Amino acid sequence: MPYELYYWDGIQGRGEFVRLALEEAGADYIDVTRDKEGGGTDRMMKIMQSRSDPLVPFAPPFLVDGELLIPHVANILLYLGPKLGLSPADEAQRFVANGLQLTITDLVAEAHDTHHPIAGSLYYEDQKEEAKARAAEFIVYRIPMFLGYFERVLKQNPAGPDHPVGDGLTYVDLSLFQVVEGLRYAFPKAMRRTEREWPALIALHDAVARRPNISRYLESERRLPFSEAGIFRHYPELEAHLDP
Amino acid sequence: MPYELYYWDGIQGRGEFVRLALEEAGADYIDVTRDKEGGGTDRMMKIMQSRSDPLVPFAPPFLVDGELLIPHVANILLYLGPKLGLSPADEAQRFVANGLQLTITDLVAEAHDTHHPIAGSLYYEDQKEEAKARAAEFIVYRIPMFLGYFERVLKQNPAGPDHPVGDGLTYVDLSLFQVVEGLRYAFPKAMRRTEREWPALIALHDAVARRPNISRYLESERRLPFSEAGIFRHYPELEAHLDP
Repeated sequence: MPYELYYWDGIQGRGEFVRLALEEAGADYIDVTRDKEGGGTDRMMKIMQSRSDPLVPFAPPFLVDGELLIPHVANILLYLGPKLGLSPADEAQRFVANGLQLTITDLVAEAHDTHHPIAGSLYYEDQKEEAKARAAEFIVYRIPMFLGYFERVLKQNPAGPDHPVGDGLTYVDLSLFQVVEGLRYAFPKAMRRTEREWPALIALHDAVARRPNISRYLESERRLPFSEAGIFRHYPELEAHLDP
Repeated sequence: MPYELYYWDGIQGRGEFVRLALEEAGADYIDVTRDKEGGGTDRMMKIMQSRSDPLVPFAPPFLVDGELLIPHVANILLYLGPKLGLSPADEAQRFVANGLQLTITDLVAEAHDTHHPIAGSLYYEDQKEEAKARAAEFIVYRIPMFLGYFERVLKQNPAGPDHPVGDGLTYVDLSLFQVVEGLRYAFPKAMRRTEREWPALIALHDAVARRPNISRYLESERRLPFSEAGIFRHYPELEAHLDP
């Protein structure tokens, strides 16, 4: 039975971290809200609004595998990792991978809040000035803090700097690829100025992009474009204070 | 060998979710930064700043158990749960518990951002107006959304509304207790007005408070007070728009 991934239709968003793992593994899955004949978004909303199901998710993305409903990106990857061959073989190392994924989760939430610092219920346009202030902080302090951290994790990996955990590919590699992609889309000027400071991370990004299943996926229609409806949004005014 | 918990000295903060689990289980642990003779905060900073260790945390809290270093609250609880008898016995249910804990993680991050909506590097006083706007949104939309969700999880639990997962105590119960405590401290007027809407959640809070190990802990010096240096902060001006 195929895995069922539930996420908002039309955007990469948080769902993309799960899609990359499913695609790398060549797993059989249904991207439910994009499957119009299968019920699409209505089917997702029915699960989310259920007043009787024992397993209710707070928000998408969530994965359904038979009887089990698993919410939250890091939790989905923790569950799928061993099944897809994308977790460390060593059980203890799985907590290391999960810890890194949770740091990525924090980065993603902060990237979101650069365009919605006050309220998710308001439009970006209604919090633009606050967004400029928050984005400036994100660019100056937080991007270097997060990416510098991942660079250190790669450099201090006893198995070498090709992977963040152990000596093989895990879902954390794929998520780090997406982080670099997303930050380049949202803050191109900031990234052009600074990404050379994190050579191991950029090398990891490039190696993931070259993987056969990933590169086929990136060129397919299944890979949605980045947009201003997603988590990583490009609003030029948020980095207008930077030189080109 | 005792577990070593590393967290910022002097505050409950995110460390408290781990302390509650260790205390409920009567586990042998050292709260490292509070152990002045054992090196205190210096010992934590040395680990965080290491340029050679294979396992480096992005931020506290983290747990050290022998050779393993585990960062992030939800990850620490995922690891400790089975050892402390605070995880569901059923393996699949552990993903349910982890999913709920990750929703709590999101709530805690949003509670933090009510007083720091623009920049963690700036003082609250420098972002007070933005904090008022974000707190107003948090009170009107987010608290009811999160606590209403947990109420639903309790009410829809096939094993009954006493616990969020299965029919026994897990670390999620303890974390939900702390969420109610924290929100009552930070937003007393908002909680007085609304908490009766979530009777199963409040009953769970009260049941946790009555547990012998928890009530002993809460009365001990090991339980730090809430304060304006933690995650849940009481700034009366953030709910000044509410009637008493």
